[in-house]
Amino acid sequence: MRTLLVTLRFDGRGFCGWQVQKNGPTIMAAFQDALASVLGSRPGVKGCSRTDSGVHALGYCVSFSTDSSIPCERLTAALNARLPRSVAAVSCREMAEGFHARYDALGKRYRYRILNAPARDPFWEGLAWHIPRPLDAGALDRAAQSFVGIHDFSAFCSAGSSVAGTTRAIFSFEAVRRGELLELAVEGNGFLYNMVRIMVGTLVDLDGGVLPAGSLPAILDSHDRARAGRTAPAHGLYLERVFYPFDPPPERS
Amino acid sequence: MRTLLVTLRFDGRGFCGWQVQKNGPTIMAAFQDALASVLGSRPGVKGCSRTDSGVHALGYCVSFSTDSSIPCERLTAALNARLPRSVAAVSCREMAEGFHARYDALGKRYRYRILNAPARDPFWEGLAWHIPRPLDAGALDRAAQSFVGIHDFSAFCSAGSSVAGTTRAIFSFEAVRRGELLELAVEGNGFLYNMVRIMVGTLVDLDGGVLPAGSLPAILDSHDRARAGRTAPAHGLYLERVFYPFDPPPERS
Repeated sequence: MRTLLVTLRFDGRGFCGWQVQKNGPTIMAAFQDALASVLGSRPGVKGCSRTDSGVHALGYCVSFSTDSSIPCERLTAALNARLPRSVAAVSCREMAEGFHARYDALGKRYRYRILNAPARDPFWEGLAWHIPRPLDAGALDRAAQSFVGIHDFSAFCSAGSSVAGTTRAIFSFEAVRRGELLELAVEGNGFLYNMVRIMVGTLVDLDGGVLPAGSLPAILDSHDRARAGRTAPAHGLYLERVFYPFDPPPERS
Repeated sequence: MRTLLVTLRFDGRGFCGWQVQKNGPTIMAAFQDALASVLGSRPGVKGCSRTDSGVHALGYCVSFSTDSSIPCERLTAALNARLPRSVAAVSCREMAEGFHARYDALGKRYRYRILNAPARDPFWEGLAWHIPRPLDAGALDRAAQSFVGIHDFSAFCSAGSSVAGTTRAIFSFEAVRRGELLELAVEGNGFLYNMVRIMVGTLVDLDGGVLPAGSLPAILDSHDRARAGRTAPAHGLYLERVFYPFDPPPERS
C-alpha cells in the first residue's frame, strides 16, 4: 500500500466546510468523488483539520492509502480534471506508511483577509471580511504579539469543541497592510475551535475601542470567552499551509 | 440638471457585458435598476465602452444627468446597498453639463491577467486566462513594444465592428510577472472590437512559436486579421481605468 499526501486549494464559497455531512456539499465529499473516479475505489481520507462553512484553503493537506500505482503527477492532473472548478489539487507526495495529515502536522499557518476600504469590492465578495473603518495595521500587529507563545486559549474557543486541552503554542502572528487588504498571518502548533476567528475579531475590537487598549493579556488570563471580542466571519479565513517535520522551515511572508 | 460620473467595479462572471440586451443580465441594466431605486426615476446612462460577456472592470465609467440633489457620497453608498454584490460603485463625481463618459475619454487602460502556472487555481477561475506552459514575461514585454505608437490596427479587430476608422494610438504596453500571474497592461486612445484580446492572443502565440518571432510589425502592416494570433478569452480582461482631460496623468503600474 502507498500513502499519499495531496495538497488542495479551495474556494470555500458554496461548501459546508471540509468534513462530510448531510447539510450540503463538502470539500471532502468532492475530493473523495474525484479520487474514486481516478482510482476506481473510494479510499478513506484523512484531512489535516475540519474547516468551517465558507472557509478557504491555499494549502489544505489530505492523506490516504491506495494500491494504485498511478504516478503522483498523473494523479494531480487526473484529480484536477474531475474536481469542481472551486477545488484544485496543487501537489501530491509519496509518504511513509502510516503518515496521517492531521496527526503528523507540527503546525499550521492561517491567513485572515480583511478588506479595509470604504466601499465593498466585488472581487473580494465572500473572500475577505469587509471593514470600512480604517484599521491601524501597526497597532494590530503590536497587539497580536500578546498571542505569541504558549498560552491557555480557552478565552478564544467557541463552545462545542470536544478537545481535552486548551493550551496551544502560537509561533508568530503578524498583521500587514497590502493596499486595501489587511492581512493577518498566524502560525501555531494547533488551534481550538474558532480560535483564529476569535483572535482576529478581538484584535479588530481592540483597534476599534470596543475592548480597552492593552487588555489582551488580561483576556487571555481570564480564560473567559465572554471577555474576548467577536468571532470574525468565516469567509475571511484561509488555511494557508500545514507544516510537517520533513519540510524546510517556512519563509516569512 | 446635474451631470454625474460614477466609477464602477464589477466581476463580469454572470453578466452578458455592459450593454442592455435581451439574452441575459447586463451591468448597465443592474446599474439602471439601482439608480432608478435611489433617484425615483430611471435616467438614460452613457457607458465609457461596450464590454464583452465575462469581461471585468476595475474602473468602468458611466455618466448620466439627474435633477436629484443627492450628494455624491450618499449616492455611492445608496447604489452599493442596491447593486448586486458583483457590482460596486467606487466613486461619484460632479461633471460639467454635457459631459459624456465615452466621448470625453482621452484614453483607457486595460489589464489582461494570465494565470501562468501548471495547475488551475480556484481563486482565479473566470478571472484569468490559465496557460500552464511557462511564458517569458520579458519576451512578451519586448514584443509588445511593436504595438506602441499610431498604427492601423485592422489586423487586430474582429469582424462585426461598425467603426469607420481603424487607426489608433497605443501609449504604452507592458507585461509583468507577479508570482503565478502574468499581467499585461495596455493604454491607448481607443480600442477596436476585441483589439486587446487579439493583441494578447498574438503575443502569447508569438511566445509559443505558433507565430514566427519578430513577425509582429509585418502582421500589423498586413491589415489582415487572419495573420494575427488567436483571440484571448474574455475572462482575463479588465477595464482598469478611463482617462479624462481633467485627471492627473496616470502613475505607472
